[in-house]
Amino acid sequence: MNKKMIFATLGQITLSEAALMSLPLLVALIYGEWRVALSFLAAIILAVVVGLVLYLSCRTENKTIFAKDGFIIVAFAWLIMSAIGALPFVLGGDIPSYVDAFFETVSGFSTTGASVLQDVEVLSHGGLFWRSFTHWIGGMGVLVFVMAVLPSITDRSIHIMRAEMPGPIVGKIVPRARETARILYIIYLVITGVEVIFLLLGNMSLFEAIVHSFATVGTGGFGIHNDNVASYSPYIQWVLTTFMFICGINFNLYYLILMKKFKDAVRSGELWSYVGIAVVATVIIGFNIRPLYGTLAETIRNSSFQVTSILTSTGFATANFNSWPSLSKTVLLLLMFIGGCAGSTAGGFKVARVVMLIKMIKQELRRVIHPRSVTAVKFEGKVVDKTTLSSVSSYLAIFLVFFISILLLISFEPFDFEMNFSAALSCFNNNGALFSATTASPTFASYTDFSKILFSFAMLFGRLEIYPLLIALTPSTWTKK
Amino acid sequence: MNKKMIFATLGQITLSEAALMSLPLLVALIYGEWRVALSFLAAIILAVVVGLVLYLSCRTENKTIFAKDGFIIVAFAWLIMSAIGALPFVLGGDIPSYVDAFFETVSGFSTTGASVLQDVEVLSHGGLFWRSFTHWIGGMGVLVFVMAVLPSITDRSIHIMRAEMPGPIVGKIVPRARETARILYIIYLVITGVEVIFLLLGNMSLFEAIVHSFATVGTGGFGIHNDNVASYSPYIQWVLTTFMFICGINFNLYYLILMKKFKDAVRSGELWSYVGIAVVATVIIGFNIRPLYGTLAETIRNSSFQVTSILTSTGFATANFNSWPSLSKTVLLLLMFIGGCAGSTAGGFKVARVVMLIKMIKQELRRVIHPRSVTAVKFEGKVVDKTTLSSVSSYLAIFLVFFISILLLISFEPFDFEMNFSAALSCFNNNGALFSATTASPTFASYTDFSKILFSFAMLFGRLEIYPLLIALTPSTWTKK
Repeated sequence: MNKKMIFATLGQITLSEAALMSLPLLVALIYGEWRVALSFLAAIILAVVVGLVLYLSCRTENKTIFAKDGFIIVAFAWLIMSAIGALPFVLGGDIPSYVDAFFETVSGFSTTGASVLQDVEVLSHGGLFWRSFTHWIGGMGVLVFVMAVLPSITDRSIHIMRAEMPGPIVGKIVPRARETARILYIIYLVITGVEVIFLLLGNMSLFEAIVHSFATVGTGGFGIHNDNVASYSPYIQWVLTTFMFICGINFNLYYLILMKKFKDAVRSGELWSYVGIAVVATVIIGFNIRPLYGTLAETIRNSSFQVTSILTSTGFATANFNSWPSLSKTVLLLLMFIGGCAGSTAGGFKVARVVMLIKMIKQELRRVIHPRSVTAVKFEGKVVDKTTLSSVSSYLAIFLVFFISILLLISFEPFDFEMNFSAALSCFNNNGALFSATTASPTFASYTDFSKILFSFAMLFGRLEIYPLLIALTPSTWTKK
Repeated sequence: MNKKMIFATLGQITLSEAALMSLPLLVALIYGEWRVALSFLAAIILAVVVGLVLYLSCRTENKTIFAKDGFIIVAFAWLIMSAIGALPFVLGGDIPSYVDAFFETVSGFSTTGASVLQDVEVLSHGGLFWRSFTHWIGGMGVLVFVMAVLPSITDRSIHIMRAEMPGPIVGKIVPRARETARILYIIYLVITGVEVIFLLLGNMSLFEAIVHSFATVGTGGFGIHNDNVASYSPYIQWVLTTFMFICGINFNLYYLILMKKFKDAVRSGELWSYVGIAVVATVIIGFNIRPLYGTLAETIRNSSFQVTSILTSTGFATANFNSWPSLSKTVLLLLMFIGGCAGSTAGGFKVARVVMLIKMIKQELRRVIHPRSVTAVKFEGKVVDKTTLSSVSSYLAIFLVFFISILLLISFEPFDFEMNFSAALSCFNNNGALFSATTASPTFASYTDFSKILFSFAMLFGRLEIYPLLIALTPSTWTKK
């Protein structure tokens, strides 16, 4: 373990967060929110001090990073970012309780979008901007950002990227990790910019267009109204649906399109499974909720919006889907679990893993019938090696163990099974939506501080796909040689 | 595929069922229930005719059975047994609807114990006896029984045994499959006999002692009172708890004890995991429900009874656990999923598979930290080969796919998520218990015929661990050479 390099990198990340917080500081200044501006300034100063101390005291010539170091850096980076990022909410008065602010910040960075706020409309512009900006930062990854902008990270940092990027296989677009990170961020910026323009065309204010674009492309789901995005026009809702859908797709696809490799881009099995899941779910829910809405257009809009929002783990809401029939809610819970494509900003188990699991099941069935047959599982035209296959099924098992543990721990709360089940699933899959059989408008605000801290860790575990935090928090990581 | 041998064996099984139905016929005669007796006689005659036609027209000298044939025999054997076994309920007037009777019979044979009857106390003695006797037959397995008693099944029939015995690895106790089947049935008979004696000592009538022993050792859960077994004395309840627990353990253990290999018997990792799960769950639920009961003794009795009942997939009830706090209900749902030990009469995912999955997770964690390390997973002192490991994780995946499919299909019903979720889990794991957030006493009787048929298949799929039925119902099984 290269402890010096770990701490120095964490220092750089803290400094990067200071730089990122200058944007909400600017917003607070523009809107004349002096107390909020001061709170961001205080957080920036703290981040600079902590970052400089870590970096200057630990920088080293030995920049070798091992797989384990990568996991540890990513785990602590996300914890530090969230711990410091929560401060402006507390100091600025937007969210008085630190536990609530920490939950909200983790929910932001992890692109969950679960909120403990009952009334978001009273928040300052600086606070609202920061809240949505965390979605944007967390969507593509904190470390991917650092790698894209900082020169001192060497190419061994693929270990960092691998630890932070979701999905079963991390493909480097180009041989150098930093170049890959830059290309991804440029695509990310362009998509964000295009969405802002489309939202402006729908008569949104610039502020609203920017924060909603952040929440969409990061597949986060924080809104700035108490009804989330329900009161926006059908045009705006369709724009959001489209961009949520776009950001649930593997970003490699956009790189392939840029390289004019159109055939390669559309040959992805994961892409078509993703499209298929979305279409089938939209149709089922459409039929199921048809009696609730006046027109067919409204039904399709609500159905496709909610399916896309849940499948991509965004969690935007245009309707009170908690009052939808059982079938629709169960379909949405299933989508919550599936999530978007690997290599996208979406959370969840990932379509790629679902596809591989189904292929493994078919293989196992063949093996049961013909015990001596040997067949290989293919994915995206290539034979998947046994290590990847076994890590996909191990991930399912570890996912279930974690999910069940969280579900048990929050079952001390007096809420119904559906609410606790969806809360745990929602946090773990970075979704943010919540269901209940006995409460009309369930909210994370009802949970105790103990559960809120648990949920915060569930969101981080889910966003980082378990291993980084698990390794960082295992005592033997630190004691063994 | 040896079609002749398949049909001839199915004929033998149908004849065996005719023989087995002579017992409830006798009971009906003893109690002077003439219409019920006649209905059993009619069913017996039908079974004899069908069995003879199948056997005589298809018997063959070529007794070779392949793995696929074994699965097909088992799948159709269970379907035929259930279809014919449901007839006496309908003809005798105990359960007028055939769908209800089929559900109840499948629930019996699969040792689920889920009931569509609102009032079981009006049933005839013959009907009640048959209902509980199906638990006893299904517990150890229909085919295991046939193998134990019929001479014509050759030793290639290990394929049949493998298809019917639950758990990831089927161990033959002795080299010959038929001898193994006989030893298992003798142990099974002895345990049943001992329980009958213990229940008689608690002042139960002989009839009650026999039917409750059937339901206990088969880990079924049908009772003959509307409050199931709640009104029985603490002594009786403790006897039931003990025998449920005993029958959730791998029966190989009892063979080892008979062979005086005590050390081998208690060295099983699965056994101690099973004990550990039961103790931990009893303590957690005990603390959680303590305020609901007057004395500590009553609390422990209810907690240990319900934990054992759910973990072993029996589904007996002494308390209305649906009114217990969320935590207890969530723990019970988890136990429902885990189930008993492999090679026991209990249903569920099986403790052995859970233990292997957790070991696989540990192995995967080591692999993530040290990508080049190679470690083996050990279970019961032996290295588990990769095929077994991958079939355990594939089983988890296929289990989830089936469970989710059933959950989606029954979500058309207007019940809350907790009720549908527990109903699907309960049927699939052959448990029989049911929870609801909005109904005080949820019952399978509320579901439509469509869902009841689905549940019937879920119970069969669960009892036979998916593959036999899946293979038998796949068209390509019948078309491909």
